[in-house]
Amino acid sequence: MKVKVFVRLKDTVLDPQGQTILSSINRMGYDFASEVRMGKFFEFEVNDKSCEQDLAKIADELLSNPVIEEYSIEFVD
Amino acid sequence: MKVKVFVRLKDTVLDPQGQTILSSINRMGYDFASEVRMGKFFEFEVNDKSCEQDLAKIADELLSNPVIEEYSIEFVD
Repeated sequence: MKVKVFVRLKDTVLDPQGQTILSSINRMGYDFASEVRMGKFFEFEVNDKSCEQDLAKIADELLSNPVIEEYSIEFVD
Repeated sequence: MKVKVFVRLKDTVLDPQGQTILSSINRMGYDFASEVRMGKFFEFEVNDKSCEQDLAKIADELLSNPVIEEYSIEFVD
């Protein structure tokens, strides 16, 4: 099965990459978006859900910077 | 409403970042994962679903590199 770890900047943290993308799409003539924020995700191929606690530890220590980022874990089928 | 655009490397393309993360977690003593692949996502704040076509164009031209990456669009309530 697959498990995804999503890492995003906390809502209180400015996202300059997202702002740049918003400016770019505005310049391209699109005005449907009022905000853009960027994040990253990691897709793990695992055997079962027993790894959830280990994964939370890894997300906290290796995949994210807990000072400015938050993560969520999502099992897929 | 929010809409997310997920961008990931095509399955046929090697993912060195994912491989590095897999090596790292193995070195940390975890062996639950057989593969790790990394991707990025963009969260747009929009008014309604009418932007889907524009968004597909932006995903194709600005957010992803169609030669090596693929994208998916997901509306969230």
